[in-house]
Amino acid sequence: MKVDVGKKILSANEEYAVRNSRLLAEHKIFCLNMISSPGSGKTTILTRTINKSKDKLRIGVIEGDIQTDLDAEKIRATDAPVVQINTEGGCHLLAVQVSGALANLPVGDLDLIFIENVGNLVCPSAFELGEAGKIVVLSVAEGDDKPAKYPAIFAKSKVLLINKIDLLEVSGQVDFDIERAKADARKLNKGIEIFPVSAKTGEGFADWCDWLIESIKNARGK
Amino acid sequence: MKVDVGKKILSANEEYAVRNSRLLAEHKIFCLNMISSPGSGKTTILTRTINKSKDKLRIGVIEGDIQTDLDAEKIRATDAPVVQINTEGGCHLLAVQVSGALANLPVGDLDLIFIENVGNLVCPSAFELGEAGKIVVLSVAEGDDKPAKYPAIFAKSKVLLINKIDLLEVSGQVDFDIERAKADARKLNKGIEIFPVSAKTGEGFADWCDWLIESIKNARGK
Repeated sequence: MKVDVGKKILSANEEYAVRNSRLLAEHKIFCLNMISSPGSGKTTILTRTINKSKDKLRIGVIEGDIQTDLDAEKIRATDAPVVQINTEGGCHLLAVQVSGALANLPVGDLDLIFIENVGNLVCPSAFELGEAGKIVVLSVAEGDDKPAKYPAIFAKSKVLLINKIDLLEVSGQVDFDIERAKADARKLNKGIEIFPVSAKTGEGFADWCDWLIESIKNARGK
Repeated sequence: MKVDVGKKILSANEEYAVRNSRLLAEHKIFCLNMISSPGSGKTTILTRTINKSKDKLRIGVIEGDIQTDLDAEKIRATDAPVVQINTEGGCHLLAVQVSGALANLPVGDLDLIFIENVGNLVCPSAFELGEAGKIVVLSVAEGDDKPAKYPAIFAKSKVLLINKIDLLEVSGQVDFDIERAKADARKLNKGIEIFPVSAKTGEGFADWCDWLIESIKNARGK
């Protein structure tokens, strides 16, 4: 019986995910589901990405948080359209919640939607939201062993953003072997794109934003 | 029906939690359930705590991880007894898993058992394991807004360890208002003990280890 109930919940989520994916395709919107531990810098990555790409991309954001709209406020300051979802304790976003959020975004006017999932490196990886791909963010302060210890999300993501690389420049401050993290991620996922970035200083954002523009072009070419 | 199934699972976990709690009480063992995001420094805190308290406390460790026994290996290097639980994808430890681990620890020879939960600031807070209390660890690299954004675990913990405070000394490197984090945690939990520490340099460990010894004395006095 446990199995049946689990199956039913998963299919309900999948149904909404398919519905979201169709709506996004109709409007030619590229959608990325951003997943990481709490405090890896997802929101700061988004505000810098939006500000850097303002002339080239029309970006909207769906913010998933357990409580507060602190992150949505930061996105609002960039003038990008944003919808906040509060899960009230829920450890991941569901496709039905994203469906509601999409209804409140100006989908006719957007090229790209980022979904910032709840800060959790485990559960969100199991729930499709209708996205074109997942982005996993790993801060160097979290340690280079995270791809080995939390493999699911690294195996499923299109892109790994290794954030806070500015901390590596302060000698001895943070022990993080960037080559080990890259190698472990590629062992799980041969095709994963990896961009080392600093959302604080902007380092690495040229390559990451070029990848976004290129991916949107390729998706539309299909 | 969803509610019934949920209830049943919770009670099975609670049953094992009560059983663990009784076993620990019989052996006069103080047990702490350590919870945090991935990469906040739980294992390094444990190795330093064990090494610093070697002459005063006999400490055992139960390591919870999704995959690998990398953390257990680090504990083993201190000579403390350790049992690794691999959850194989599970986002939190269950009391039944801890029960199995306790059967493999020398409970007659221990004063204190640390359970290092899976790195996840959300789900583990909802599952009692039979512990005397929860410890939440927050690294300054994760940001001072985490108590407000992930309130459940801060509301339930006996102790908040604010780790990696060495990063605050590098001016401008990490933005973290320690007074804001403390105030937000105390808003949720008036009695929470807060220790700012650096598992890397050892700063703050004298107070934290004194608290452990005092708490064990108090628990035995009851």
